[in-house]
Amino acid sequence: MSVGSEIPSAIDLVAVRHAVDEVLREFVADRVRSAAGPELPPALAAFDEYLAGGKRLRPLLCYCGWYAAGGAATSRSILRVAAALELFHTFALIHDDLIDQADSRRGRPTLHRGLDAYHRARGDVPHPDRVGTGAAILLGDLALVWSDELLYASGMTERQLTSVRGLLDLMRNELMYGQYLDLLGTGVPTADLDAALTIARYKSGKYTVERPLQIGARLAGAEQPLLDMFSAFGVPIGEAFQLRDDVLGLFGDPAVTGKSQLDDIRDGKRTVLLAIALDRADGGQRDRLTRLIGDPAVDGAGAAEVRRVVVDTGALATVEAMIDERLGRGLAVLDDAAIPPSAVRALRSVAHAATVRSA
Amino acid sequence: MSVGSEIPSAIDLVAVRHAVDEVLREFVADRVRSAAGPELPPALAAFDEYLAGGKRLRPLLCYCGWYAAGGAATSRSILRVAAALELFHTFALIHDDLIDQADSRRGRPTLHRGLDAYHRARGDVPHPDRVGTGAAILLGDLALVWSDELLYASGMTERQLTSVRGLLDLMRNELMYGQYLDLLGTGVPTADLDAALTIARYKSGKYTVERPLQIGARLAGAEQPLLDMFSAFGVPIGEAFQLRDDVLGLFGDPAVTGKSQLDDIRDGKRTVLLAIALDRADGGQRDRLTRLIGDPAVDGAGAAEVRRVVVDTGALATVEAMIDERLGRGLAVLDDAAIPPSAVRALRSVAHAATVRSA
Repeated sequence: MSVGSEIPSAIDLVAVRHAVDEVLREFVADRVRSAAGPELPPALAAFDEYLAGGKRLRPLLCYCGWYAAGGAATSRSILRVAAALELFHTFALIHDDLIDQADSRRGRPTLHRGLDAYHRARGDVPHPDRVGTGAAILLGDLALVWSDELLYASGMTERQLTSVRGLLDLMRNELMYGQYLDLLGTGVPTADLDAALTIARYKSGKYTVERPLQIGARLAGAEQPLLDMFSAFGVPIGEAFQLRDDVLGLFGDPAVTGKSQLDDIRDGKRTVLLAIALDRADGGQRDRLTRLIGDPAVDGAGAAEVRRVVVDTGALATVEAMIDERLGRGLAVLDDAAIPPSAVRALRSVAHAATVRSA
Repeated sequence: MSVGSEIPSAIDLVAVRHAVDEVLREFVADRVRSAAGPELPPALAAFDEYLAGGKRLRPLLCYCGWYAAGGAATSRSILRVAAALELFHTFALIHDDLIDQADSRRGRPTLHRGLDAYHRARGDVPHPDRVGTGAAILLGDLALVWSDELLYASGMTERQLTSVRGLLDLMRNELMYGQYLDLLGTGVPTADLDAALTIARYKSGKYTVERPLQIGARLAGAEQPLLDMFSAFGVPIGEAFQLRDDVLGLFGDPAVTGKSQLDDIRDGKRTVLLAIALDRADGGQRDRLTRLIGDPAVDGAGAAEVRRVVVDTGALATVEAMIDERLGRGLAVLDDAAIPPSAVRALRSVAHAATVRSA
């Protein structure tokens, strides 16, 4: 965890983001070229577009973890590992959209809907919706497999790769478990705050912030104390990220979030925001919430009603306070952290971007 | 590729199969114990049952490849690698069943239908079909991730694992590509024999026989000549395996195959058998085939009509001859192979089991 003197004094997050995007572009272009036949490229083009819109939170955090642990700022290898985490995330999103039957993501049709529309327009298959779904299952699978390939072709040594196996396994299992809990809870609105927080913790708390930081740090040779520091920072920031996601799901501007304001309500997602609202609701408010949450036909007026109850019960203010508390708790960990000041600044910046965002 | 003197004189395929099953049972039981909450075990129990019925062709071939290349017959590590290939195959089957919307597999409900029925009976979720589908997507993903974990926890050295990365990447990409071709061709019956053979080659030719053999052999230190021999053996045997699958899909006893005789017809699968029948059909036969293939309402009488055309056009006899030719070509490769006689016997036995089977 020693910080060598050759390390630049600052992390340029914008440059890291661009470099990661460049790795992803090259990788997918290479796959298009080497696809064993002409059938795959249209699907890969859709995949490429889908990949274009992300915030790259996990790659940035992976890079910050690496840098904070003394990794060389100019390493190509860590950029490839960071890009591999983004491919893993892309896999997770593609399958999540299928599970949720979501129509849009990042302001565009989800991959399965996009491929459905592509084949529908060409009229080249009898069941475009089935092909859209099947292709998205396979492209998600490919993204997972490719994430592995990019990781192993990153240029990290065998020893470095072996050192992060355990963290990668944890990250993958935690995400799947969070997704599974989310799936089982969907459509069953509940005032059970603990259950909603557990889902938030697994789905995002660990997966989005803690693990990418730790993976980057471990690759640079970090020992347990630094990994623990990243847990203490990452878990609250990751939870705050998920809580912000819940708030944006209900109150965010769809033109900015790229997602419908109706999805969480229609699907009856077990979010912390709705759990608190249900817990605090009086009789009339509870009736309205239980009628609207999980209603497949819910419309804009219904969503406005849900928002009103969420505001009137104080659930929104409570969740905003929870976000603030977690953000403060995470940031406080950085005050005493034995990492370069530039890493502290970058982590503060990413923490704010993850929790005080509008999309 | 040297064959050490400590190697037993025979491969006991039954013992290998049991040992692989034992590894799989232990692995899944461990996952049930360590699941982060009580929600996952019912799904894992369903997964465990699903896992129970396979032929274990890929693990057996992986073991044969290892042994043929001089690997120790008593190695625990190779059994764990072999079990990892079976977990990968389980992932592929779970997602394949979803893509095909299949109802049964190995004589039991497919995983998504089973979990749908489980939640329907309990009445614990509002949309059991959506939960069944979502859970099967996630359990497939988990099987893929677990296959990796088992591989890396197999006890093989870093150097051994690195030596098979390229083969594993090929195997995964080839399978996905075959699945994708299969998906795009589904419901579009065609007399294009080349297209059908390409699908067969990718879906099974390489994935089922060639790659498992090569992975096992490479782990035991095999050089290119032995890997090439396994390609020369594996590709025709793998194609024969897929051709047998096509025949069984139409003519097999559902009580033995565990699959409906209607699926391939109803889905309009682009099989070699149907491509040849379509190519040879006279006007009346072609009308019947194009009417029945891809018809979602096709029944037993319709299937019998398709079978009659497949027999009358000589397509069945042609495919049986193709299976024989490929089986003979694969077996001939073994005649000059520089591998222990016991490995030759085991490979002959697996080749027959894969191509002259009834299920």
